[in-house]
Amino acid sequence: MDGCPAGLPLADADIQAELDRRIPADSKIVSARIEKDEPKILSGVFDGFTTGAPIAMIVENKAVDSADYEAIKNLPRPGHADYPALVKYGRFNDYRGGGRFSGRVTVSLIMAGAIAKKLLSQFDVDVLAYTRSVGKIRSDKKFSTEEIRYNRYDTFTRCPDFAYAEKMEEAIVNARKQGESIGGVIECIALNVPVGVGEPMFDSLDADLAKALFNVPAVKAVEFGLGFEIAELKGSESNDAYMMQNGKVATTTDNMGGILGGLSNGMPILIRMAIKPTPSIGAKQKTVDLSTMENSTLSVKGRHDPCVVPKAVPAVEAAVSVTLADHMIRAGFIPKVLVRKK
Amino acid sequence: MDGCPAGLPLADADIQAELDRRIPADSKIVSARIEKDEPKILSGVFDGFTTGAPIAMIVENKAVDSADYEAIKNLPRPGHADYPALVKYGRFNDYRGGGRFSGRVTVSLIMAGAIAKKLLSQFDVDVLAYTRSVGKIRSDKKFSTEEIRYNRYDTFTRCPDFAYAEKMEEAIVNARKQGESIGGVIECIALNVPVGVGEPMFDSLDADLAKALFNVPAVKAVEFGLGFEIAELKGSESNDAYMMQNGKVATTTDNMGGILGGLSNGMPILIRMAIKPTPSIGAKQKTVDLSTMENSTLSVKGRHDPCVVPKAVPAVEAAVSVTLADHMIRAGFIPKVLVRKK
Amino acid sequence: MDGCPAGLPLADADIQAELDRRIPADSKIVSARIEKDEPKILSGVFDGFTTGAPIAMIVENKAVDSADYEAIKNLPRPGHADYPALVKYGRFNDYRGGGRFSGRVTVSLIMAGAIAKKLLSQFDVDVLAYTRSVGKIRSDKKFSTEEIRYNRYDTFTRCPDFAYAEKMEEAIVNARKQGESIGGVIECIALNVPVGVGEPMFDSLDADLAKALFNVPAVKAVEFGLGFEIAELKGSESNDAYMMQNGKVATTTDNMGGILGGLSNGMPILIRMAIKPTPSIGAKQKTVDLSTMENSTLSVKGRHDPCVVPKAVPAVEAAVSVTLADHMIRAGFIPKVLVRKK
Amino acid sequence: MDGCPAGLPLADADIQAELDRRIPADSKIVSARIEKDEPKILSGVFDGFTTGAPIAMIVENKAVDSADYEAIKNLPRPGHADYPALVKYGRFNDYRGGGRFSGRVTVSLIMAGAIAKKLLSQFDVDVLAYTRSVGKIRSDKKFSTEEIRYNRYDTFTRCPDFAYAEKMEEAIVNARKQGESIGGVIECIALNVPVGVGEPMFDSLDADLAKALFNVPAVKAVEFGLGFEIAELKGSESNDAYMMQNGKVATTTDNMGGILGGLSNGMPILIRMAIKPTPSIGAKQKTVDLSTMENSTLSVKGRHDPCVVPKAVPAVEAAVSVTLADHMIRAGFIPKVLVRKK
Repeated sequence: MDGCPAGLPLADADIQAELDRRIPADSKIVSARIEKDEPKILSGVFDGFTTGAPIAMIVENKAVDSADYEAIKNLPRPGHADYPALVKYGRFNDYRGGGRFSGRVTVSLIMAGAIAKKLLSQFDVDVLAYTRSVGKIRSDKKFSTEEIRYNRYDTFTRCPDFAYAEKMEEAIVNARKQGESIGGVIECIALNVPVGVGEPMFDSLDADLAKALFNVPAVKAVEFGLGFEIAELKGSESNDAYMMQNGKVATTTDNMGGILGGLSNGMPILIRMAIKPTPSIGAKQKTVDLSTMENSTLSVKGRHDPCVVPKAVPAVEAAVSVTLADHMIRAGFIPKVLVRKK
Repeated sequence: MDGCPAGLPLADADIQAELDRRIPADSKIVSARIEKDEPKILSGVFDGFTTGAPIAMIVENKAVDSADYEAIKNLPRPGHADYPALVKYGRFNDYRGGGRFSGRVTVSLIMAGAIAKKLLSQFDVDVLAYTRSVGKIRSDKKFSTEEIRYNRYDTFTRCPDFAYAEKMEEAIVNARKQGESIGGVIECIALNVPVGVGEPMFDSLDADLAKALFNVPAVKAVEFGLGFEIAELKGSESNDAYMMQNGKVATTTDNMGGILGGLSNGMPILIRMAIKPTPSIGAKQKTVDLSTMENSTLSVKGRHDPCVVPKAVPAVEAAVSVTLADHMIRAGFIPKVLVRKK
Repeated sequence: MDGCPAGLPLADADIQAELDRRIPADSKIVSARIEKDEPKILSGVFDGFTTGAPIAMIVENKAVDSADYEAIKNLPRPGHADYPALVKYGRFNDYRGGGRFSGRVTVSLIMAGAIAKKLLSQFDVDVLAYTRSVGKIRSDKKFSTEEIRYNRYDTFTRCPDFAYAEKMEEAIVNARKQGESIGGVIECIALNVPVGVGEPMFDSLDADLAKALFNVPAVKAVEFGLGFEIAELKGSESNDAYMMQNGKVATTTDNMGGILGGLSNGMPILIRMAIKPTPSIGAKQKTVDLSTMENSTLSVKGRHDPCVVPKAVPAVEAAVSVTLADHMIRAGFIPKVLVRKK
Repeated sequence: MDGCPAGLPLADADIQAELDRRIPADSKIVSARIEKDEPKILSGVFDGFTTGAPIAMIVENKAVDSADYEAIKNLPRPGHADYPALVKYGRFNDYRGGGRFSGRVTVSLIMAGAIAKKLLSQFDVDVLAYTRSVGKIRSDKKFSTEEIRYNRYDTFTRCPDFAYAEKMEEAIVNARKQGESIGGVIECIALNVPVGVGEPMFDSLDADLAKALFNVPAVKAVEFGLGFEIAELKGSESNDAYMMQNGKVATTTDNMGGILGGLSNGMPILIRMAIKPTPSIGAKQKTVDLSTMENSTLSVKGRHDPCVVPKAVPAVEAAVSVTLADHMIRAGFIPKVLVRKK
């Protein structure tokens, strides 16, 4: 990670804390592949503070077991990147465990996000993602900021609604029992982003946030504010009117999700995204055998999560945090050298 | 526009043809500001072919009338970028007509898109956008490729369903009469994109397409394939199974919208996006007076489209085409020097 | 030009003033192709100040005469880019007048430089280039800053040493008479650059300055401070010792040319570069006929400068100014919105 | 390192071989800090071939001794980046051993270069750097390609002229005895680069090569072909005439160093650069005490090379190789998937 200003207090423990949020402490809903991810900062930190130099970090993969993958070398798994990757990279493609296409790459994203979040917190910017739905189980509760902030990582499914969180967990357990998988919807809010962050027209804030989020595996849809719902409204309903509030300009609603013309407008940034069901399922699926170019079938063995939504929540926070930090630096809100915030 | 390979036949008329698609020939549904956009290629073309050098193009704004905007200098229009732009760029911000935040910037995008589309057509890649809904009027028809290709620009609203296109037009006319505005949903398909286009994990194909689309003014949501709908399915329902078809690998469904792991998989790329209602409406709206920092009201005068969906359709095609052309060049599918296709 | 902060006073005349420096008012030493370059700012300026939006500018080529070039279509001119450009861009390459490889592209660079210089001047940064030698005529005078600032554009050859400037002019006139061409050495100083500008290790200040300069046609060598001379010194001779001067840290010498470890150190930045003789000469030269792939000869007709050094001086100032402005913005020294300097 | 095509055979040993060239096996001329650099490829290689995924590599610093640096915390060393880095990064700057400004960063460059060289060798492109002079000892021998290729790493000073290599070594030993340091000149040739590599006008090949080289610590000057010498020639002397040679277009001389208009022309690329004397010297030097802002002195203790020229030779090869590989990929000469070369 390059570009982090000098003067940010940073330690391995800061990275560890975010990584720990990736794997819910509940073996019922996550893959059997549980290993503790232990990050180590290799450069860019001296005497407890960032130096302004690039920050290299490492987490070693310990429990690697590639045996499961040999059998499927020629049988592209539906929903996975196997087939296009093979065409793109040829027979040299690393087919084991999805390689660079594995959900495991979000470990790196979360490490970078941990630094970005710490940086943003110096400026009181808060990025909070949480689960809105898992499969067909959807909580329609309107959460307070406090509920989101303090409860989201207290449930295995990262939903701040305790009652629904339990139902979601059941849905995941049921999917696993059936050799099935399910997806869900994640929401993310970013609070206290200053007005004027974003660089339209080629690097609008929403454009870069969406880019970061679609780079997270399994994301298939991204919307801001009311999103698709806005298409059915009238202008007088969708426009966020301005008003003075505590001596500051604010809007009476936040239908735009805090972004206008590619620039933050000072209101909470609201993002919603769809996560597809994990492609790896135990059920028999149709595929083709690339060695014979004939129709075939496969059922995916190995260690798979029946639902990646819980693991995706901290990855979403990371993607949003890194993008916001980058844009706040670019817009001049974050100086090159920090004065430590108490 | 830089990076266009040498050898592409190109003339002003190619650009003109795409620009002409921007303004429906129906003054009932577009702003009174009708001027013919006349593009001129300034560089990068010699003897009718691109030379490999940067292509500069220009369209002059003729009917400029800034008078309308003076009155609202201190009254940020709800739903517009006025307020965050003023905070970002200070009192130097060009408040007239939205400046760089005007929908008029899509003229440039469409000019670049015209070149990208011509380039893609050499490789049989086809990018077709069309209107799915306007306000609450939604056509649920499953369009054939031919219907989309040949009919979409035959209706003022760019919907290939003639019956619904007329209803949509009425909805726009009604909105205008009420001093209101409405939004809609646009869909875009890209056909014949070869397998393996995209550069994960930082420049996934869907990530860059989404970025390009959110840079188009008024877009508030983007989804691929089934999009948000996929969140409620099971893996066995959402995975696109592989099969042999005419000697080639294909999928039985296209729930993923032609993109897996950030790479194209050879199936049609399917994108859907929400367009917000035009922020400029005649009705009186709440705002604040930035010269006094007190609550105030305004109603927006001037030449405004009650619905930007029809104008956004060619902009969406342009954004998708430029992104695909870039990625196909990057992946090596488009050579630096073209041999003319018959 | 994108990225210029809002609030910079800017007018066509600012661009014109720099462009006027490109063509010495002496037809004896420049090509017969004399046309006044008239720049027009198309966007990004409102009420006399930059708005923060991209600044588009245009200069029209009026006296275009391509006839001279037809004859040499298959005969690559030694020293020109004709041959590699033909191989790269194929038969679509624009062979007229060098196309994008013409010295005329420096017009665009100088336009961008005019803005950068105006921006830098708000922060008292001054970029001054001048001619050190033309062919074998070399002035070894140690110039004062004032001599450079006020005299360099008072001689046709852009050398602040009036006596030598005249000798240089004679050398150019003689070269022309012989159908020959000559090169020279340009020096450039940048004053008052604050300490700490530069982004090592991938975007060191000297690295980006050199990149910008080698992108200027005809530059074949770039050195900072003592340059090649430093290779023969001892460390005790080459190191610039620190001292306090007027309450500030300074160095006793400036052998490093104001850059250490890729960062500005507050001392004057000193750059020296070699300009090759104009490749176009009237004398008969050996070449190959690409239509027959046989040895051949040509002598270049048309309007050519016997020495491009005088025209290169403002281009060098532009390249250095744009790079410094970029880096000062990146390092946070130039804010996004300027408060007008009196 | 990202962007390496799939299918390149690659092993730790390939990286090790290049790293071993960094440290001459002669403790008389290098710093006492001798540790074997042991590289490990962490990702991007599977079954002995690159996969097309990013290649992460690591070399651990074993013999770290920061004690030497504490004393000089407030005394910037002349010729080092200490002072500007302190101003840029504040008191958080890592002052130990130069941190990111240490010559030791070339280890990373050489690792990347090892991959680039292996890639280039698949296309018969050869990059060979060697020492032309050390201090005042300069070999004027015209080396054959074979002499350079086979002899350059057979002398401790990386000069293919055995007689002069010994004199250079003596000069370095003498400098060390005197507590002094010396610099030198390195030359680099790149053979078999195809015609048309380079992307003017913003990414000319010479511009990017120069940028890469000035990012190498201690480089103060870069020239191509005849370099500064060309400034004194006439066009008829400097132009490289074309001729047919073995059925191919070639030039009779290579004064331009293989680059015209920012594009390779198929002739050998010739680069020459100046390396400054190591700033760390034992002799007492003037500096300022930044804690008191008063004049002071220091003499640099610790493990220092009296001359970095020998260590810089493989770094120069790496910088040139990485740049050429990048540009050959960009120009389409290197495909995304390699077919193994016998």
